[in-house]
Amino acid sequence: MRMNTLSLLSQLSVPSEAKIALVVMDGLGGLPHPETQQTELETARTANLDYLAREGICGLAEPIGPGLTPGSGPGHLALFGYDPLTFTIGRGILEALGVDFPLQPGDVAARGNFCTIDDHHLIVDRRAGRISTEECTRLCQQLSDIAMPGIQALVAPVEEHRFLLVLRGDHLNPDLSDSDPQQLGLPAKEVTPLSTGAIKTAALANEWVARAKAILASSYPANMVLLRGFSELPHFPSLSELYKLNPAAIATYPMYRGLAKLLGMKVVDGGHSIEDEFAALAKYYGQHDFIFLHIKQTDSAGEDGDFWRKVRVIEEVDAALSRLLELHPDVIIVTGDHSTPAVLKAHSWHPVPFLLYSQFCRPDEVTGFSERACTRGSLGTFPALELMPLALAHARRLTKFGA
Amino acid sequence: MRMNTLSLLSQLSVPSEAKIALVVMDGLGGLPHPETQQTELETARTANLDYLAREGICGLAEPIGPGLTPGSGPGHLALFGYDPLTFTIGRGILEALGVDFPLQPGDVAARGNFCTIDDHHLIVDRRAGRISTEECTRLCQQLSDIAMPGIQALVAPVEEHRFLLVLRGDHLNPDLSDSDPQQLGLPAKEVTPLSTGAIKTAALANEWVARAKAILASSYPANMVLLRGFSELPHFPSLSELYKLNPAAIATYPMYRGLAKLLGMKVVDGGHSIEDEFAALAKYYGQHDFIFLHIKQTDSAGEDGDFWRKVRVIEEVDAALSRLLELHPDVIIVTGDHSTPAVLKAHSWHPVPFLLYSQFCRPDEVTGFSERACTRGSLGTFPALELMPLALAHARRLTKFGA
Repeated sequence: MRMNTLSLLSQLSVPSEAKIALVVMDGLGGLPHPETQQTELETARTANLDYLAREGICGLAEPIGPGLTPGSGPGHLALFGYDPLTFTIGRGILEALGVDFPLQPGDVAARGNFCTIDDHHLIVDRRAGRISTEECTRLCQQLSDIAMPGIQALVAPVEEHRFLLVLRGDHLNPDLSDSDPQQLGLPAKEVTPLSTGAIKTAALANEWVARAKAILASSYPANMVLLRGFSELPHFPSLSELYKLNPAAIATYPMYRGLAKLLGMKVVDGGHSIEDEFAALAKYYGQHDFIFLHIKQTDSAGEDGDFWRKVRVIEEVDAALSRLLELHPDVIIVTGDHSTPAVLKAHSWHPVPFLLYSQFCRPDEVTGFSERACTRGSLGTFPALELMPLALAHARRLTKFGA
Repeated sequence: MRMNTLSLLSQLSVPSEAKIALVVMDGLGGLPHPETQQTELETARTANLDYLAREGICGLAEPIGPGLTPGSGPGHLALFGYDPLTFTIGRGILEALGVDFPLQPGDVAARGNFCTIDDHHLIVDRRAGRISTEECTRLCQQLSDIAMPGIQALVAPVEEHRFLLVLRGDHLNPDLSDSDPQQLGLPAKEVTPLSTGAIKTAALANEWVARAKAILASSYPANMVLLRGFSELPHFPSLSELYKLNPAAIATYPMYRGLAKLLGMKVVDGGHSIEDEFAALAKYYGQHDFIFLHIKQTDSAGEDGDFWRKVRVIEEVDAALSRLLELHPDVIIVTGDHSTPAVLKAHSWHPVPFLLYSQFCRPDEVTGFSERACTRGSLGTFPALELMPLALAHARRLTKFGA
């Protein structure tokens, strides 16, 4: 969506009692099973989703554009109306959101890798043989002891060889180059300032790397660190500023809670299971007019290449949807942030099944919820950025443009 | 449409004998009747429209964008290829067009409200209890007596509490703030200049308000005025400049005639009824290569929530279309400027049924004219801004781009 479309929506949106529920099944879109020729969603028995699709309008949402495979960050930003090509979140910040790290304004975060260097300081393995997460945690504790002059250097383990570095202090600036040359046979690069305001921060980052290298000297294969994606918390307009909503988010994974917080949503306790999440939805429903509920398990099953587990997760969500239907929100939207077909074991570029249910839908001819059915939906294949104007319109929360 | 698409069209368009007829049924799009589950257009018997849809191409036109509800001004601008987010018409000017006020270049027009203030000059009713149009007319006559130094202040009644103020003189500038605080319990605001060139005009506007207030002191509840939307006639490129057309407009409502004039169309006498309008079309057909015929009654019926009257109007237009078909124009387009579903009693965001008939259409699978059928049309859901290039192309009035 163009920046001026967002400003237009902020002008046209009005407060209202009408409620919108957005259920995002991460990685929802799939591809046919080679034996049955049916996708995960086509295979699953989904009485509630089929009902919503039949009574509402359907289509296929494109998070970024044709052929482009989104990460989870950009995929979600698009759903909430933030063009992922304009609203970018640094890799360091995404890493921090992913481990629920309590970031403060002004923090500079970087994504770190433990790596292996040889006697000539040349990189021979960028991932240090993928050390265990336990080993990563132990090394991070050692690195946490590095005392830096005038600032704090906070280190948190992520997974295997990956960790998070957060520099905290006054006047830090994330405008820094990566130290990771992304190639073997070269030494780690100096972190260089990309603008004059970042000279001090670059020096601090390099000093931290030097001291980390000294500490790790005897920790082969994890005897060096590489840093990339220096970034700070971006300031995005909130859903409340843009759309006059009082939004809540329910998610079991930290990254999605962090992202929701970044967009000004109130993150409420969603428990640990799909059932927990829908129970939380019912509990907090009265206090909010926009509720985002995130289901991670569809994506995890897809990433694992487990077609049948993804089918079962979809069926579990479908059953849980009964709790949402009983609340009679004015608008219900069910979609994903991208496709994760089990046959690909990865995120993909395929557009994502989308349904919108409200009493003001003009009916189309879709009678069930699936990739194939959505192809015939009245929304066609459309940019995911259009979700929010469609949601607000069907909730009658947008006034007329011009006289 | 982007400005450079317009400039491209003006480069590629060529004069020709081929004729284009554009029939706009205002507020054409609808929603299903709760009892029959059929929309107004699906309910109406429309042999001619169905014929045109079957032989031509169909789709659903989006005047501004997904979820956005257009006013009639922006809705029409989009049909003629003028992006309503770029080509804006001030509220004062729209009001003047709506009452057929003979605007002159340099006039500054504002939309006025009679309102009620209390003894402390605070606004207690922004619409003065919606006084009658007769009372409005009487008060406007009184205000017309205000003699301003060096300029004319022209006042015209609109409807109920609404009136039009036009300041006419040399070097006036519409870059002024509203005096309407849009809130009760506050006094009317001073009109302030928004740029240095508007200082003199602001002073004149404030003087006029002060004198109006004195005159209205004893006219409770209409004892004060509020002004907003100061604006002047915009200069838009004409249809003739952009598309090399010699266009005529037929409309029974002043606003649409005014808009057509603004775009360089020749406004011909269209009488008072739908039959009159189609008779005018036949009469002026020989002299023009582009004829815009506007039907207001579909929208009025929708706004009134009168489903069956809207059905009858559509059937009346369908019958009248026989006269147009006899003329064998090269291209016939039938659509609306927005949807006005009777069940909503208001303009809505739903995309608008669209048909284009010409001997050069590549057939699609649509066999009748309705919202549902147009969903399956080969044009899909598309920006209304694409109407003009499609019309010109099918009339073979556009040359090839590039060698």
